[in-house]
Amino acid sequence: MIHVQPNVLLVSVLNLIGTLVFAMSGAAQGVQRSMDLFGVLVLAFVTAVTGGITRDMLIGAIPPESITSWHSLALAMLGGLFVFRFFRLFDRMQQPVLLFDAIGLGIFAVTGTQKALDYGINWPMAAILGMISGIGGGMMRDVLTAQVPSVLRSDLYAVAALAGALIVVAGNAVHLPLVVVGWAGVAICVFLRVMAIYRGWRVPVSRWGRTEPS
Amino acid sequence: MIHVQPNVLLVSVLNLIGTLVFAMSGAAQGVQRSMDLFGVLVLAFVTAVTGGITRDMLIGAIPPESITSWHSLALAMLGGLFVFRFFRLFDRMQQPVLLFDAIGLGIFAVTGTQKALDYGINWPMAAILGMISGIGGGMMRDVLTAQVPSVLRSDLYAVAALAGALIVVAGNAVHLPLVVVGWAGVAICVFLRVMAIYRGWRVPVSRWGRTEPS
Amino acid sequence: MIHVQPNVLLVSVLNLIGTLVFAMSGAAQGVQRSMDLFGVLVLAFVTAVTGGITRDMLIGAIPPESITSWHSLALAMLGGLFVFRFFRLFDRMQQPVLLFDAIGLGIFAVTGTQKALDYGINWPMAAILGMISGIGGGMMRDVLTAQVPSVLRSDLYAVAALAGALIVVAGNAVHLPLVVVGWAGVAICVFLRVMAIYRGWRVPVSRWGRTEPS
Repeated sequence: MIHVQPNVLLVSVLNLIGTLVFAMSGAAQGVQRSMDLFGVLVLAFVTAVTGGITRDMLIGAIPPESITSWHSLALAMLGGLFVFRFFRLFDRMQQPVLLFDAIGLGIFAVTGTQKALDYGINWPMAAILGMISGIGGGMMRDVLTAQVPSVLRSDLYAVAALAGALIVVAGNAVHLPLVVVGWAGVAICVFLRVMAIYRGWRVPVSRWGRTEPS
Repeated sequence: MIHVQPNVLLVSVLNLIGTLVFAMSGAAQGVQRSMDLFGVLVLAFVTAVTGGITRDMLIGAIPPESITSWHSLALAMLGGLFVFRFFRLFDRMQQPVLLFDAIGLGIFAVTGTQKALDYGINWPMAAILGMISGIGGGMMRDVLTAQVPSVLRSDLYAVAALAGALIVVAGNAVHLPLVVVGWAGVAICVFLRVMAIYRGWRVPVSRWGRTEPS
Repeated sequence: MIHVQPNVLLVSVLNLIGTLVFAMSGAAQGVQRSMDLFGVLVLAFVTAVTGGITRDMLIGAIPPESITSWHSLALAMLGGLFVFRFFRLFDRMQQPVLLFDAIGLGIFAVTGTQKALDYGINWPMAAILGMISGIGGGMMRDVLTAQVPSVLRSDLYAVAALAGALIVVAGNAVHLPLVVVGWAGVAICVFLRVMAIYRGWRVPVSRWGRTEPS
């Protein structure tokens, strides 16, 4: 009898949602840059899996999950094809897309941190690896489209991922159940993103850099 | 008595040809961008080995082949020095170079896919890994010269690599001998590249992106 | 009783200095590009650890040192915060910074080569891996800020790292003690950098590339 823990099932389902959302964000960049269908799909896949693959390689979970299973590939293709075909519709849905993206970010940060801790990584680096799981895909998407990664510039994006990761670290330290901790981590991540987008919350910029054209 | 399988020998020889061709393509970019000799050689090496190293890391063949042996390094230096010294000659040979590049692409895709399958990777991801073996070097070359990877834009480049990879997957499924399957994979890859270059075969572009300047 | 070899202690201390210097060079780029505090810290960390992580992954030392310990992270944060807060002061110290950077480069090249040799890598690739340990962080810094890596263009930067690495290889071949070889490697690296900066020593550029605007 196969016994699936509710946690594991939940994490898997959430990870699939995160993968789909991130794939669509990569595909949208590809369409905007006039890439052909194939380029769009490559960008969708890369955006969806780079964060998780980087984390898995760094903690020694080799081959990474997204390589040993074809589920991420299939989901990325689905998300990429949808955006390629219905780009205008997708473009009009910016508000829900940003929300889904925040949820995806939180999910990847939370599950990434937990996996790093499970592999025996010290907590500061586990939080960093959780953050990388969340932001890695978007960074690769921006590097491949020859832009400075947007995550380095603005909008509490990496900060939100790190906050979610730190909640998981704290929860593990006091032995709270993963379900509680995980949702709390995703919630803080989404909250920070919403505040950044609608209230303009920011991280300070050095006054020396500000005077130069970027 | 050491017994070298004809397959293994063939694959090695082909891989060396692919390495040389890819190194020259990286070196050419470096010369065009006024890099010094050293930058040209670094770019030659990176273009030649990144695809294979990425594949090896992802399937868990660590340290990668191009690290445990110095053959790729030596070949990349040779190719890089040749282009650095005789750039004008190389530049005039664009037609044969494109053909060799297509052969190199097919070889890397075919041997990469077979290696991933040998390491127990599922077939969809094995095909993707074969494709990555073929296109990874060129993508890294373009990222290091701060360009959007040309493979994301045009000319059935990644598609040709993927087609070659899928032939290998199909051949393995019906237990055809590798020699037959491999040549068929390289042939389809070269065919698609030739059609893209001389007949303008393309993958569709989304009509939403097309209206914007890229 | 814990017995720390003087060599090991020395290497550790030197590596920490290298990490701090490289983190500051990454942070400076971030400030100049008007990144927020978080982007600056990410860039500081990435610049400090990418070279060593790449080497460790390629030789199979997984998880890499900078992941299993939080020391690099802490040092990178320190260096990043310092540059963020006192950028003008840092900017005025260009001369000492360049010197420290040369020392950091030499240290990473020397210790990286020794580690690769210890893992049984052949000497040509061990030297390349030492060079990568030295130049990898700066290359990643430049890729993330959407520039062609400066190391590919000028100033004997990679050449100096390679020279230091080759000294270590030679020293190992004739069984000289690591302390002697290591300092010799760092010294040659610093010497070449100083000559490049103050005397304009250069590697030749192909005459074909030179005529084109880069």
